[in-house]
Amino acid sequence: MIDDRNAVVLRPIGFIRSPFSDPAGMPIQPLGARGVRGAVEVLPEFFNGLADLEGFSRVILIYHFDRSEGFALRVVPFLDNCERGVFATRAPRRPNPIGLSVVRLLGVDGCRLSIEDVDILDGTPVLDIKPYVPSFDAYPDERNGWFGSRSTDAGTARADDRFSRATDRTEG
Amino acid sequence: MIDDRNAVVLRPIGFIRSPFSDPAGMPIQPLGARGVRGAVEVLPEFFNGLADLEGFSRVILIYHFDRSEGFALRVVPFLDNCERGVFATRAPRRPNPIGLSVVRLLGVDGCRLSIEDVDILDGTPVLDIKPYVPSFDAYPDERNGWFGSRSTDAGTARADDRFSRATDRTEG
Repeated sequence: MIDDRNAVVLRPIGFIRSPFSDPAGMPIQPLGARGVRGAVEVLPEFFNGLADLEGFSRVILIYHFDRSEGFALRVVPFLDNCERGVFATRAPRRPNPIGLSVVRLLGVDGCRLSIEDVDILDGTPVLDIKPYVPSFDAYPDERNGWFGSRSTDAGTARADDRFSRATDRTEG
Repeated sequence: MIDDRNAVVLRPIGFIRSPFSDPAGMPIQPLGARGVRGAVEVLPEFFNGLADLEGFSRVILIYHFDRSEGFALRVVPFLDNCERGVFATRAPRRPNPIGLSVVRLLGVDGCRLSIEDVDILDGTPVLDIKPYVPSFDAYPDERNGWFGSRSTDAGTARADDRFSRATDRTEG
């Protein structure tokens, strides 16, 4: 039971299907999941909201990191070996455990979206789907802070279990 | 009071400060808000999570469309004059009213992020801040569906009150 006037209460609109059932060993960004296929199974009640989506070659998925427990304000990201502020990382153990991935949309069949470049755990609850619109979303020349040249290492780096454990480094 | 095992319960980590107090007349994307300055006032308890953020020239803000009521599965977007599936649009009246904007980060002073290209209402609750990383997030050449050449019209188009009314076109 929740009694909190500031709370924002969301409900899944669907669920991810992917080959990844264990956080350890999975790709850490769509960049590292090139060619990995999966799906979004949207709940039937939202079918009418999927019209016109097929014209987009990428979609933004917003989802709940449901297997992440607690959060830390400082984390050691997969691509680094020192602590960073969590809001300067894409780590899952965030104050609000919301994930964002820009995945390739292969097709829409009824309530099933076939997707590629999937870096998301099987069974993950999806909260929103938005069309990826380059003139809104693509800024290829921005400065990427501590990632520097490491961001392209996401193509080969793999996750370990650091963000599924709730015991270490939790603060705040 | 909420009793729902599927619910995802989030709480604001901060609030938007912007010149826009009324949805009508505001820009509909950061593209149309070039040069508009604002801020994210992050709650003090999350201060430690902001470390290292200043190295990024853009951030992804995920926020709650708190003045949007109800939702529709088919909407007439600001850039079009016929109905589209809501998941193929960026309209606010979504099943989960989550907004996403890629804004310019000008600087970080304590818990205050100075930002530019702000297309967000003053007082909007912020749920998450993520660094914008071009190799994860920038796909300049994707196919953008019904937007077509209209996506660049977002540079001049302005919102009206269609998505703050709960009475029209609601379905599902």
